This record gives sequence, C-alpha cells and structure tokens, in this order.
Amino acid sequence: MFESAELGHKIGKAEYQPPFPPLRMALQEAQVAIYEAKIPVILLISGQDGAGKGEIIHSLYEWLDPRFINTLAFSDPSDEERERPAMWRYWRSLPPKGRIGIFAGSWYSRVISEQVNGDLALQAMDAQADQINRFEAMLTNEGALVLKFWLHLTEDAQRARLKKLEEDPKTAWRVTRWHWNRLKTLDKLHDTARHLLRMTNTARAPWVVVDGADDRYRTLTIGQTLLSALQQRLAQGANTSPPAAPFARADVDGRNVLSEMDLTLKLPEKQYKSELAQWQGRLNELINSPKFKGRSVVCAFEGADAAGKGGAIRRVGAAMDARQYQVFPVAAPTEEERAQPYLWRFWRHIPRRGRVSIFDRTWYGRVLVERVEGFCKPEEGLRAYTEINDFEHELSDAGCIVVKFWLQISQEEQLRRFKEREKIAFKRFKITEEDWRNRKKWAAYQQAVCEMVERTSTGDAPWTLVEANDKSYARVKVIRTLCERIEAEFAAAEAPQKPAKPGKSGKTPKNGGKSD
Amino acid sequence: MFESAELGHKIGKAEYQPPFPPLRMALQEAQVAIYEAKIPVILLISGQDGAGKGEIIHSLYEWLDPRFINTLAFSDPSDEERERPAMWRYWRSLPPKGRIGIFAGSWYSRVISEQVNGDLALQAMDAQADQINRFEAMLTNEGALVLKFWLHLTEDAQRARLKKLEEDPKTAWRVTRWHWNRLKTLDKLHDTARHLLRMTNTARAPWVVVDGADDRYRTLTIGQTLLSALQQRLAQGANTSPPAAPFARADVDGRNVLSEMDLTLKLPEKQYKSELAQWQGRLNELINSPKFKGRSVVCAFEGADAAGKGGAIRRVGAAMDARQYQVFPVAAPTEEERAQPYLWRFWRHIPRRGRVSIFDRTWYGRVLVERVEGFCKPEEGLRAYTEINDFEHELSDAGCIVVKFWLQISQEEQLRRFKEREKIAFKRFKITEEDWRNRKKWAAYQQAVCEMVERTSTGDAPWTLVEANDKSYARVKVIRTLCERIEAEFAAAEAPQKPAKPGKSGKTPKNGGKSD
Repeated sequence: MFESAELGHKIGKAEYQPPFPPLRMALQEAQVAIYEAKIPVILLISGQDGAGKGEIIHSLYEWLDPRFINTLAFSDPSDEERERPAMWRYWRSLPPKGRIGIFAGSWYSRVISEQVNGDLALQAMDAQADQINRFEAMLTNEGALVLKFWLHLTEDAQRARLKKLEEDPKTAWRVTRWHWNRLKTLDKLHDTARHLLRMTNTARAPWVVVDGADDRYRTLTIGQTLLSALQQRLAQGANTSPPAAPFARADVDGRNVLSEMDLTLKLPEKQYKSELAQWQGRLNELINSPKFKGRSVVCAFEGADAAGKGGAIRRVGAAMDARQYQVFPVAAPTEEERAQPYLWRFWRHIPRRGRVSIFDRTWYGRVLVERVEGFCKPEEGLRAYTEINDFEHELSDAGCIVVKFWLQISQEEQLRRFKEREKIAFKRFKITEEDWRNRKKWAAYQQAVCEMVERTSTGDAPWTLVEANDKSYARVKVIRTLCERIEAEFAAAEAPQKPAKPGKSGKTPKNGGKSD
Repeated sequence: MFESAELGHKIGKAEYQPPFPPLRMALQEAQVAIYEAKIPVILLISGQDGAGKGEIIHSLYEWLDPRFINTLAFSDPSDEERERPAMWRYWRSLPPKGRIGIFAGSWYSRVISEQVNGDLALQAMDAQADQINRFEAMLTNEGALVLKFWLHLTEDAQRARLKKLEEDPKTAWRVTRWHWNRLKTLDKLHDTARHLLRMTNTARAPWVVVDGADDRYRTLTIGQTLLSALQQRLAQGANTSPPAAPFARADVDGRNVLSEMDLTLKLPEKQYKSELAQWQGRLNELINSPKFKGRSVVCAFEGADAAGKGGAIRRVGAAMDARQYQVFPVAAPTEEERAQPYLWRFWRHIPRRGRVSIFDRTWYGRVLVERVEGFCKPEEGLRAYTEINDFEHELSDAGCIVVKFWLQISQEEQLRRFKEREKIAFKRFKITEEDWRNRKKWAAYQQAVCEMVERTSTGDAPWTLVEANDKSYARVKVIRTLCERIEAEFAAAEAPQKPAKPGKSGKTPKNGGKSD
C-alpha cells in the first residue's frame, strides 16, 4: 500500500515550475465545467500529521475558485451532533451539486483514532469499513466524484521533519512533547491505515497514497491527479449508476402479504376509546421514562391515499408533549434537497436523543410513487432498497428506534373516503386530481408495496402492516405496536446476555482530530 | 396589564361545548387558507409555569393539522447556538411561509429569567425590549402574523393549583420543593412581565394576556382569538408593509463619497509583494491569537462587477487556514430561503466563535441590485437599512467583528476588465449579458451605493471604501483594514474604562427554561 510512497520521490525546482500555470488554468476550467454539470465533488485529504495536509488544502485554494469550495474540518462533535447517529455530521456537510467539498478529517478519522488507541477490535473496524464502502457507493451512485488522498510519511521522514521544525526558531513552537510521543504509535497508525485503506479501496472510490515528504512532488501529484479525475468524471456524463439486475420476480399464485390481510378487522367504539386511552398513556410513560433519555424514535407512515395516516399520526402525537416530537410531511423535495443525495432530506430531520420524528410519507417514496410513476431510473429504484436498509441500520445502530407502518385499505373503502372528503369544506384540499389518477394505478402500487416489504422489513426496522378499513382498529394497532417496539428495545438494551454491537452505545467517541 | 386576567373568569361546561365543533372546523379552514396564502404564523405561548401552556399547545394540535405546525422549545442553548449571537437560535427556528411555528419559550425567556434572577439592570432590559420590538417589526413587515399569548396566574391561584396537584396521588410527583420556592419570586415575575409586556406591546405584535386558572376559559379565549387573528390576517392580503417615507435626498453639487475617491492610487509591484506578505502574516497572527477565541469575523464584500472582489477574497483567505474560514458567494435565494425573511439566508451562515465568514456580495443586495432593478418594493428597500443595521448590531454585540468593503472602480476600468475577461477561457464564465446590462445603469448604482454608505456605516460596522482601479493597492488596503479593525476590537475589549455593553460578553446565559 505504501511502497511507492516510500521511494523517496523528489521533484526539483526546474521540473516543477513549467507545468504550473497550465495546470492551474486547466483546473479552473474543469471546476467551471463541474459546476455547470452539477457534479458534487468530495475530496478527502487524509493521512499523517505533518505530511502536508494543510499545505495541500492551501494549494487547492490557490488553484481553484474558493467561492465554490467548502472546507470541512471535524474536530470533536458538537452536542447537536453527538445526539445523533455518527454519520449525521457528514451528511449535513455534504457539498451540494456542482461544488467541491474538501474534507479535512472525515468518516475515516474516528475509525483510525479508535483503532490506534486500541479501543476498537479488528472485526469492528472491518464492520465500519463495510459501512463506509456502502456510504461511498451511495455517493458515487448519486453522481458524486469521490477522491481520497492519503498523505504518507515514513518514521524517518517524520523524525527529520520534526527536527527541522525545532531547529528553526520561527517554527520551534509547533513541535511539542506530544508530537515526539506520537512517533511511538506511528507503526500502529501505518498498520491501521494499511488495513483500512485496503478494505475501502473500491473501484468507485479508490485511494491515492502520496509521499508527503517532498513539497513539490506532493503538490504536483495531487494537482495532476485531481485534474485528470475531474476531466474523466466530466467525460462520463450524468449517468454513472451501474445497471440494475435484469430480472423481475415471478408471481405464480397471486397471493402476497397485502392480499392476505384481513381488512374486516374492527374495533367497537367503546373498546376503541378505552384501548386508545390506555395505549396513549403507555406511550406517554415510555417516552418520559429515564430509559428513553439516550434513545430516539423515527416513526414512518406510508399508506394509500386516504388510508388514515394523518388521523393515526394525530393520535400518536396526542400522547406526547408537543416539544418532544415533530411531524414531517414529505412533499416534493426543495431546491436545496434536490442538490443532494436522495436520503439527505430525511437525514436532516433525524431526531436528537429523547425526541421523536414522525414522517408522513417517507424515504420509501423512492420505491413507491417514484418507481410506479417512473420518476426515478429503474437502477435508482433498485439500489434504493440497499441504501434505505443501510440508512435505517445506521439509525438503529445509534440507538434510534425505527418503526414503520403501512396502512392498507381496500379499493372500495378508498373510493368511499374520497367521496366523503369532497363533501367536507376543510378536507376538500386533501383530495386532488392526482389522488384520482393514483387510484388507477392501484395494482402497480400494491405490487411495489409487496416488494418494499419483502426487501426492507429488517431486524433493525421491521414493517408493520396495518388493517386500516376501520380507522379505530388501525389507530389502536399503530399506537400499540409503537409501545411494544419501544418496550422490546428497552428490554433488549437491558438484557445482559446480548453482546453489545459496535457503536450501539450511542456515544460518539472523541475524534482526537489528529491522525486523519 | 393583568387586571382583566385576575377577574376570576370561569366558563361552565354547558357554555363550553357548543362553540367547539364549529371553532375547530373554522380553524382548520383558516389554516388551509394560511398555507395557500403562504403566510408564516408565529405563535408565542408564554407565561407562568402551571398556567396551562402545555395544555394550550396540546389543544392547538387537536384543532389544527399537526403536519403544518412546528413546536419549538428552547431550553439551554446547544454549543452550536452558544457560539453565535443570541438571536441565531430563533432565526434558525422561524417557520417557513404557510406554516405555524409555536414557540414554547422564545426571545422573551432569557430576558425574563435574567431579570427575575437579578442579573439584568432595568436599563438593560429596556434595551433588550427595544431589540425585540425591532425583530418583531421585521417579522410582521415580512408578512408574518405574530401572536403573543401570556398566561397569567395570581399567587392564590398558583398556590391552589399546587395544592390540588399534591393531593392527587397520580400528580403529586409533579410538585417539588422547587415549585413552592418559586412562589417567592412570583411577585418579581409579575413585575418583570408587566414591564416587559408593556414595552413590547406594539400595534403590529400585541400581547394577549389570558387568565390561566380556568381550563375552559383559557382554551376558548385562545382558540377564538387565534381564529379571528388568522381570518383578519388573511383579509389583509400579501402587502402588510407600512408605506415608505415620501422623499428623496436632493443632490445640489454632484459631489459624493464615491466621486471624491482618488482612483489613481497605485502600489508598485515590489511594494505590493512585501506589503501583502506583511499584512497576510499579521492577519494570520491575529486569527490565531488567543484573543480571537471568543470572537468571530463577518467580512462583507461589495463592489461593481469586475471590481476585484474575488481576487481580494482570495488574498484574505490565503492568510488563513482553510478550516478557519468559509466563503459564501451570494446568488439568487433558494426556495427554502425565499420562504423566510430576507435576512434569514445570511443568518444561517453566521460563523461560530474563532471562525471567519466571507460574503462575496451580501445582504446589501437588497439596497443595491434589488433596489435599482426594482426587484423589491420601495418600502422594503427603505426598511432594509434599519433591518441591516439591527442585524449587524446584533452580530457586533455578540463579539463578532463586522468588516465591510465597497470596491470602487471607474467605468473605463470596468470596460477594460470586461474585455480582458472575454479573452481568457476560464474567466469567460465570469462575464455575462447581465454584466453588460448592469453597466448601463452605472449612475443609478452609484447613487444607491452612496445612500447605502450614508445609512449603514455605523459605529459597530463602518464601511471601508476601497480604491480598486489598481488591484494591488485594493488588495493591500483590504487586508490592512481587516487587520486594523481586528486590532482595534481587541484593544477595545481590553480597555478597562469602557463600560461593558449588555450581552457584549459573548456569553449566552442559561435560560433556566422555566418562566417563559
């Protein structure tokens, strides 16, 4: 991995000067083209302390137009970040389309510093590498150019550098005992990096290891590598998603999870009132329990039009203090959301600890309406299943309880409700031409729902199918399920026999902010 | 102020039931209309603990569609909030157009709790009340409906309530020693509220004081008040700005701050290099000085097209670590930004402590391009001066150093640069049809700049006019001015004789989160 970076590369002043003015001009031209093509560029400047990370970022600002660059440094997470899944801080920092985000410190920093400090088992590191690969695959599938530079120094080079700094009175202050001590763990850092870089060296987001010892060599290597990457990415054009698998599941008996639901299930008025009150009380207790302090809930509601999502959400909300939860009705994405990966607009509403986010329609829009209506490409729809599972896994891994409801009604019941809505003044806005149009695609939607349930009902985040022809029955089932899921999660957290998942603690360890 | 709220209002069950179903239906209808008319609604639910704030919010969720309500609670600020001006957390929480933001805790909370705890002089409270009035005037001028409810309880009523809670075993746990102790400061709270409510009881955003003792009275009063406010606001339509003053300043000798600038000022190449390096070094020292830890810089660049803003920004940036600063090129507002008050899109980029935000074009667009091109109404342009001064004052009050540059070039020099740009491939994107169009309005722009300087060059945030026909001279003047401003701010902070301004400490005191 580091062999080429230890050859003692050196570029003389005479070799260095000539390529520069044309390189700078070509980089600026490429940046303009990237901006116009709306390609997000994610540039990781990682590696050893003292291997020239700061200098490279400085050079990038000289070469490029700084107005379309964001540099993102990640030191210790803020409390708003600590109270959410570890990836949240990176999601919120992703550059919008057409811009270059320079990551000085990244999703690798924590893994490396934990491993070097001995806090992380090798297996856990591999699990995190896998998570990182999935994240980067999502980014490149969404059209991003992901470039990862690792600046390397041998122990001798590092030692020589510190000596040189110490000898110059102007820079001597930059070298402390901490820096010399750090040399002792350099081997460990190299081993860790060697392993992690291998694990995350994918075809879509490969690493470029650069010898950091010689300023000119380092600068020229990165400048030219960046330029060729930008140019090649531009040549690829918009569609960089790999093609989807060419198959569709055969349906031989017409039976599926929806057709098997018993939509005649009902709850008599009196029983409804008492059960609703009972479960609302229970939900209130659970949310206010000390056990909920380190947890959060993401509650996802999907269902056909007029299936009663709004009514169910209202009953869930009524059990809580308005300050504890927030409802997010999912409409068309805004401009800022469209300039980001698909899941970005949901990440931004992930609750902090002790809070509940309720989504009225969700990220499943990708595999429901967008799929049926053809708003996304087939390969985008297919990879959405994986991305969604990863997303929900990250939430759940950080202690967030993910609860998903599909509210199912019959076609006849939907028709009855549409007609009813048209009669009531303040409900009329709820029923539009589009609702009538969607109705015609009933069979296609049902098929999409079945596939969604099959592919995304996971151990972390199972689907609950709710028989919703009777609103009372549906509402009670929703709140009861929610209570039972929270109770089960509390019990699992307390069970002594269960081995702790890595990261399950909900804590975001300190970064140390150094060897990234 | 509280007289009517101490009459012992009581509504019987029989009087209460009949108005309810129609009230709920009317509220939902009004909410739909508000959504369609894109009016933001800001609802403050303030008042004493135990006077029914939580219950009212609960009722609001029953009456309205919860998907278009955000409830915002403000307990102790997060570290991201503490590192910015006190108002930042409220700006970031404003509801977008068409939505209802319920503020459980607001910009009043901190003032009241500081005053009750004896941390705030009466004069300081009045200064804060003034700041609040200006903020609320901005909101209503931007079309928002601002409704402020204050829930009041007499000491007897409060005492009776605590007794009742204690007697019921189910609620006894809610009453602690803290609650009884709090009764001792109730007079102080009433006095403070009486004073602050009077000071902030404006025609555009009046207070509604409500007796909190009787559940039915309180609920019905707030429900009906809210309904009539929504209906009346809808009747007002879009334009709620008061008309602008009907005058324009007479120009009798054609001399102004721009015409008096000496655009022949030049810096020879050699001197440029040495002075630039010197001031860049100084800037680097200042930004890395321990004195900068609690401070931040907002650097605003304005100037005619091709005046050299980009080049100057690049030189300022080169003096800093890329992690310390961020450049924000100001383009057309995004959809999310258009759904907010004008200044919202600048507030979101206010730097945290120890950081620098550089704006390439700024909030002055309102009084420059928007004014000249007629993109905003005359009254909007005129009140922008006040709003901008308030904005910059809030920044400066929180320890942020606001530095503003106008880069001035001659018309001939602009023409020369336009032609030059058209020749260079990677600069061609910088020159568009629009630039040529703007050039024709040179005189109108110059006049707008003069008025801008006159109205917004304040003690907190003075303008620096930069002679920019010579790029070298301009760049050095910019960096030198920036250094000198920071030095002056450091010196002022250390001067013992200067009386501390309220809030100048940069600290956001804890809220206590209670009597708001």
